[in-house]
Amino acid sequence: MDGERRARMGLAAAHDAGDVGLAKLIAEQGAVDVWEYLRAGHGKTSIARRASQLDVDSLMRRTDQIGARFLIPGDEQWPTCLGELEWSEPVGGVGGVPLGLWVAGPANLAETSSLAMVGSRASTAYGEHVAADWAVGIAEHGYCVLSGGAYGIDSCAHRGALAAGGATVAVMAGGLAQLYPAGNSVLLEKIRDSGAVVSEHPPDRPPSRARFLVRNRLIAALAKATVIVEGALRSGAQNTVSWALSLQRPVLAAPGPVTSAMSVTPHRLVRSGQATLVTNVEDILTSVEPLKSAIPDYPREEPTAMDGLTPDLAQICESLPARRSASVDELCAVTGESAWSLMVSLGRLKQMGFVAEVSPGMWRVSTRPPQTTGSGQDALISPPS
Amino acid sequence: MDGERRARMGLAAAHDAGDVGLAKLIAEQGAVDVWEYLRAGHGKTSIARRASQLDVDSLMRRTDQIGARFLIPGDEQWPTCLGELEWSEPVGGVGGVPLGLWVAGPANLAETSSLAMVGSRASTAYGEHVAADWAVGIAEHGYCVLSGGAYGIDSCAHRGALAAGGATVAVMAGGLAQLYPAGNSVLLEKIRDSGAVVSEHPPDRPPSRARFLVRNRLIAALAKATVIVEGALRSGAQNTVSWALSLQRPVLAAPGPVTSAMSVTPHRLVRSGQATLVTNVEDILTSVEPLKSAIPDYPREEPTAMDGLTPDLAQICESLPARRSASVDELCAVTGESAWSLMVSLGRLKQMGFVAEVSPGMWRVSTRPPQTTGSGQDALISPPS
Repeated sequence: MDGERRARMGLAAAHDAGDVGLAKLIAEQGAVDVWEYLRAGHGKTSIARRASQLDVDSLMRRTDQIGARFLIPGDEQWPTCLGELEWSEPVGGVGGVPLGLWVAGPANLAETSSLAMVGSRASTAYGEHVAADWAVGIAEHGYCVLSGGAYGIDSCAHRGALAAGGATVAVMAGGLAQLYPAGNSVLLEKIRDSGAVVSEHPPDRPPSRARFLVRNRLIAALAKATVIVEGALRSGAQNTVSWALSLQRPVLAAPGPVTSAMSVTPHRLVRSGQATLVTNVEDILTSVEPLKSAIPDYPREEPTAMDGLTPDLAQICESLPARRSASVDELCAVTGESAWSLMVSLGRLKQMGFVAEVSPGMWRVSTRPPQTTGSGQDALISPPS
Repeated sequence: MDGERRARMGLAAAHDAGDVGLAKLIAEQGAVDVWEYLRAGHGKTSIARRASQLDVDSLMRRTDQIGARFLIPGDEQWPTCLGELEWSEPVGGVGGVPLGLWVAGPANLAETSSLAMVGSRASTAYGEHVAADWAVGIAEHGYCVLSGGAYGIDSCAHRGALAAGGATVAVMAGGLAQLYPAGNSVLLEKIRDSGAVVSEHPPDRPPSRARFLVRNRLIAALAKATVIVEGALRSGAQNTVSWALSLQRPVLAAPGPVTSAMSVTPHRLVRSGQATLVTNVEDILTSVEPLKSAIPDYPREEPTAMDGLTPDLAQICESLPARRSASVDELCAVTGESAWSLMVSLGRLKQMGFVAEVSPGMWRVSTRPPQTTGSGQDALISPPS
């Protein structure tokens, strides 16, 4: 395994990522043989020259030094979902399973169910609100939020997941020694400290335009589905979408105002049938958990803490959607209450721990509602006497 | 024909609209026989009683008095597309071809290609902007804008069509003597004076909840497609959509912010596959003119008036999308010009007649660009020497 790890690290450092031919060669011949062959000066001269000059020991020390680990296929923490890149159609001439992954941070990618959220760097306030709001919900449902660490939608997705105390992973287009963009370093360090930053490049390789495109395949391949929140007519997010489609993973798109140039790509993807329109976290989860959502909720006949509420407060509590937040306007429409009396009631319910205000004017059912005396599970075994 | 007209007017006045059974009976037995049968006191007592008491001559005078005409199938102005209601599935137990139509206004429904635009009465500023903007474009492409004359989206659709100098028709849920809602009477009178107001009810019958639902089938049946701009969770527009689907006509839906309760129904219709997402007038026209849009534009090699422009102005002109408007921001991104210099150039192009500002900050290619010396058609036959 050590020889395999050294060979893969050497190959990743001697050559740029995304070479379908090299990935195929390794799948057929094994990384060790290919590495030894190139080290001996055979094959493509440029790779062979770099391979013969490479000091893998020093690269391993550098990996340790920046607090990263180098994962390869077969490792316990290796995300096996990347294996599908071996068969998926290349996009723009690049593709293939990565030779290995430099990972820094506590997240275990092998045990993580992720949803990718991508979109424009030049996002609007609307897109940023949606990205953060949905990332909170995705994280609260136990999914890791995967994105690229860029400004705009990427940042909001990561921030939403962090705010919810959930896991979030940023896949980098360059090595992990210098997290890019530098202006996002505080956020990226938070992601590394609580989730992970990931790269298929050696620590000191800078990002490049080509590496962003190659990187996008990892975002799509590591996620069960890709959500695109905003993108202008020519959007980098389109490339991630192409990868998701190549991998036959669901692509989900957030609609927006037709007057917004930043919603052009999501709308186009829906019109062309490449993406499914989603309007909230429930819609997103339905796309990745079709069976779960088809099974009706657990019967709710058992006593709940809500039984202690006044009818007015219980009605407001029940009018909140189960899995997403609702605006005061929406609740007014549903309950028939005035906005003013609704605000008073919501404030009381918040104090009692039944509801939470996720953003100004947006309310949802609390994820940790007050405990009732008998849990529903127990009630099924020994009904309360 | 006079007997037929009298019979149908009498039947429309003696019974409420939307009775599938009566429509079938008339299709089989003929209106004159059914009318004479009921007049003689046979059949359902309530209809028969009303029929026997009815003064059709007075109803005809009343029709003249309010400046309306009563059209029946076979009339030159009768919109034959209503015939499909004979075969379409009833919605909510009602349906059928109307017995006749009271029409006031210069529009000839038989020669009109219409698109219906429907949506919430409690519309948002966004929805109102979209409805008016699209109605302008629909009217500029020679389509009649059809709606229900209500507050909100209906009103904006009618206003947009009127602003563009196009035809617009309002289908009423009550008789034409009192246009409803009274608060919209100025707008409704403008619609009547330049397009038409239409009803299947005798002049003095008031609207009712049931008549709105029956009315919606006429909106759907008179239009090639129905565009829904905004609708809350429980929206009356859903009923019109059900009629369009029953008639197998396209349903088109405008997306909006997922944070807007008024976009819930359009988004739901897209997610369920009942509606196609549309983002501009071009998308709408593509749905009703699939062949037209599949044929590539006429070759553009022939000399155009644009050849006289400076390269800077020509570039800006060419950067405008062919069939929709573009924001200054979008044009900045495409041309690389600053917003300021773009505004100056657009102002000059507007003066020269090449572009038009359709709403503040939104520009499109002029529908009547300045004429060039040689037309393209001529150029193909005798190339300029």
